[in-house]
Amino acid sequence: MESLLNELKNRLYEVADFEHAASVLSWDMATYMPQGGAPRRGRSISTMSRLRHERFTDKAIGHLLDQLEPLVAGLPYDDDNAALVRRTRKEYDKAVKVPSELVGRVSSHISGLYDAWTRARPANDFASLAPMLEKELDLYREVSDCFPGYKHVNDPHIDGEDAGFTVETIRAVFSKLRSELVPIVQAIAEKADPSDDAPIRQLFPISGQEAFGLRVSRDYGYDFQRGRQDLTHHPFATRFAHGDVRITTRYKEQYLGDGLFGTLHESGHAMYEQGIAAALDGTPLGHGTSNGVHESQSRTWENIVGRSLPFWEHYYPALQETFPDALKDVPLERFYLAINAVKPSLIRVDADEVTYNLHVMIRFDLEADLMDGTLSVRDLPEVWQTRYDSDLGVTAPDDRDGVLQDVHWYDGIIGYFQGYTLGNIMSAQFYNAALAAHPYLPDHFRQGKFDTLHTWLKENIYQHGGKYTADELLARITGSSLDTAPWIQYIRTKYGALYGI
Amino acid sequence: MESLLNELKNRLYEVADFEHAASVLSWDMATYMPQGGAPRRGRSISTMSRLRHERFTDKAIGHLLDQLEPLVAGLPYDDDNAALVRRTRKEYDKAVKVPSELVGRVSSHISGLYDAWTRARPANDFASLAPMLEKELDLYREVSDCFPGYKHVNDPHIDGEDAGFTVETIRAVFSKLRSELVPIVQAIAEKADPSDDAPIRQLFPISGQEAFGLRVSRDYGYDFQRGRQDLTHHPFATRFAHGDVRITTRYKEQYLGDGLFGTLHESGHAMYEQGIAAALDGTPLGHGTSNGVHESQSRTWENIVGRSLPFWEHYYPALQETFPDALKDVPLERFYLAINAVKPSLIRVDADEVTYNLHVMIRFDLEADLMDGTLSVRDLPEVWQTRYDSDLGVTAPDDRDGVLQDVHWYDGIIGYFQGYTLGNIMSAQFYNAALAAHPYLPDHFRQGKFDTLHTWLKENIYQHGGKYTADELLARITGSSLDTAPWIQYIRTKYGALYGI
Repeated sequence: MESLLNELKNRLYEVADFEHAASVLSWDMATYMPQGGAPRRGRSISTMSRLRHERFTDKAIGHLLDQLEPLVAGLPYDDDNAALVRRTRKEYDKAVKVPSELVGRVSSHISGLYDAWTRARPANDFASLAPMLEKELDLYREVSDCFPGYKHVNDPHIDGEDAGFTVETIRAVFSKLRSELVPIVQAIAEKADPSDDAPIRQLFPISGQEAFGLRVSRDYGYDFQRGRQDLTHHPFATRFAHGDVRITTRYKEQYLGDGLFGTLHESGHAMYEQGIAAALDGTPLGHGTSNGVHESQSRTWENIVGRSLPFWEHYYPALQETFPDALKDVPLERFYLAINAVKPSLIRVDADEVTYNLHVMIRFDLEADLMDGTLSVRDLPEVWQTRYDSDLGVTAPDDRDGVLQDVHWYDGIIGYFQGYTLGNIMSAQFYNAALAAHPYLPDHFRQGKFDTLHTWLKENIYQHGGKYTADELLARITGSSLDTAPWIQYIRTKYGALYGI
Repeated sequence: MESLLNELKNRLYEVADFEHAASVLSWDMATYMPQGGAPRRGRSISTMSRLRHERFTDKAIGHLLDQLEPLVAGLPYDDDNAALVRRTRKEYDKAVKVPSELVGRVSSHISGLYDAWTRARPANDFASLAPMLEKELDLYREVSDCFPGYKHVNDPHIDGEDAGFTVETIRAVFSKLRSELVPIVQAIAEKADPSDDAPIRQLFPISGQEAFGLRVSRDYGYDFQRGRQDLTHHPFATRFAHGDVRITTRYKEQYLGDGLFGTLHESGHAMYEQGIAAALDGTPLGHGTSNGVHESQSRTWENIVGRSLPFWEHYYPALQETFPDALKDVPLERFYLAINAVKPSLIRVDADEVTYNLHVMIRFDLEADLMDGTLSVRDLPEVWQTRYDSDLGVTAPDDRDGVLQDVHWYDGIIGYFQGYTLGNIMSAQFYNAALAAHPYLPDHFRQGKFDTLHTWLKENIYQHGGKYTADELLARITGSSLDTAPWIQYIRTKYGALYGI
């Protein structure tokens, strides 16, 4: 068994080398690449993606799995090698259904689309992207057709991000959540004032934002010997290796929220990846297990910790010192309201915790409709506006803050949006378990100490990488399955106090 | 022929995709990668290099060349396709002699060695590198053995950088040059004062150095839509594509020369690569033709232009404005002497034009002796000191500024040093031809206009990429072969005036 496992791992490490190369090429494209580099970069990323797929779907890997499966059958479910064979088999069986040349075509198209988006968004030019978006949807439908028997054409893509979920099952979760959430949003709306967030909409010099964000990120436990932060158009975290997990961010001089909470959000993703056991690096176990679990971690560090009162009892004096002009006369309680102000808004990534999921539901529905052809790309900007008007009561002045706001559709991220809301739901479930084990967590935050929570998360979630599915993690940690109740309870408690409802 | 050529090009483009990936991975390793990223990065670069070699040495490429050679035989020598087949054949025949797995082993070892050097140099710790340097030499000797019949074990590596040259032919050039150079050095030594360069050894805040260097680089014609500059340990230029050619630099706060002339030097390399016809991109013609010709361009823009009096008649007032504390009381003539001060020194990249080639000769000899075993790695630091003492009369206080100063040996750059001196020699030959065509070049520099020279270089050298060998370029442009006389004449004229000899 030893030598078969080694052969499997060596093959997987080579697959990972291609993934590593493609990831670095993509990171550079999103951070430092001069504009002239786009065409050849697209080609090279496409070649790397195609060959990654070609190597991973090599029959030899299937044959090794065939031989190993009976051998690991006797091992405990938790065993690293048993998990490796189990997860690799799952991904292998999916991957072999998609031809490598299609993977190359998708990747090549996406690089061009991403490059076009970085220019179309500032120019408010959706029209120039529309044909490329059309073609992307065609390509993704072509991928879906490699999985005959799906119920909805977006199901295979959703399954790739949040295994086990479908458009149907997610709609059921979302519908339940919406019915609980909308009354809360309405109750808050009666108490909220549009100027609640005014204190964080002032001038915040970017060098101060950067220094403060990095300080908190370090305090959280993001290891900068194995990571770094750079600027980009739309923030993301990316793993190149156990020893190299990076985040990106962007700043607005007139708005503190984007840069600060963006950094905390991506730090959460990065800490998950950095916390995965080194021994799993370069294998299908060496990544966060699902999109939803990943988002549960970014949202934990961004919101449950980073927008909590105890956290700011510790950090607010330092923030005031960093930005005396903006904050010296703003008391802590006022600032706390500002960073948690509930206010229907245009941009998902800047949305408050309460209305955030309404954005996700819109995007999820629109994407499903785009994919199954119910909605045409031509009509997308108008339908976008209609949905934002009806669900959130806001209207974007242009497509920049409407249909062009997110990189996702223009970066090949399809089947992904549900993860943000699944993540919110799970974040409350996991956090409650951490709190049960360590009831004094908020006191630790109040002292700027995060290692108790970080260690608990590493032990219970991070170190396992892709060993357990999202469902298995939930069961192991909370003894339950996906449950919206803890998150609704968290929102009711926090915002009930804030808005006196 | 059309379809055979297309098939060849498509295969070469895929080879270039691997090269592109390996280059970006290496650039990131030398600029932004956190320390923890090194081990997996080394693996991935090695895989890319191995597979690049595997694809390039595919029998199908040999077969395509076999079929194409008779077909292009009727085309003019200057024809792009004829040149493509000719150059690809030359590189193919060399490449097939080296097994891909050896290429992978070399590349993997080099990444580790580079990473170790970045830590060993600041720590002045040659001992920790010695075993890795030994192993590198073993690997390079193993590569040489793929080319049986060489006269000196370093000849195959020299041929890879400066085709046609050998240890023997270079020693002949160097010996002639040395006999002409040493009397000049001695004559200057009698007139020079150790404090000649004092004006550029003051405090120069780095932000000012950066802004000024980038300004000149832009004025030269380096296109930042297709390039950028970042910080590194040891400056280099790198081509990812026609649309993406980057440079790197480093600054010393107490010394203007390193950052400023480093930027101008690397800009020269980058302008060469940016000037290559776009149609040659992604093929063996899409690179500067040889190491020597490349250095001729970096040295032209660094020295012949960038250390000339007309150049500084234009820029000096702006430099004084940038650094008033250091320069406001330094007259132009004094500054001009400072940037051209002849002073035997420890560090090659900082050396003046006159003594620079003496550094190169030492390194060339030591490398040849290391490769053929005359010199052991153990004895290298001592022999280094002895040679610097006898040839330049200087002694390094430690290995940091001695045997560890250059990245070359620790970045797999073997068989390369001669190119610096060949480049100096050729730079004067090419520049004289440009001057014959445009006698008013110095007046243009005096006005901050560089497009006359840049355009001439693009037309005569840059656009051709790898189409002509160094010898062919020299013959086409100067009607002669490699000739030390123009460079010696340039040095005599410039430094005769400066030092009154």
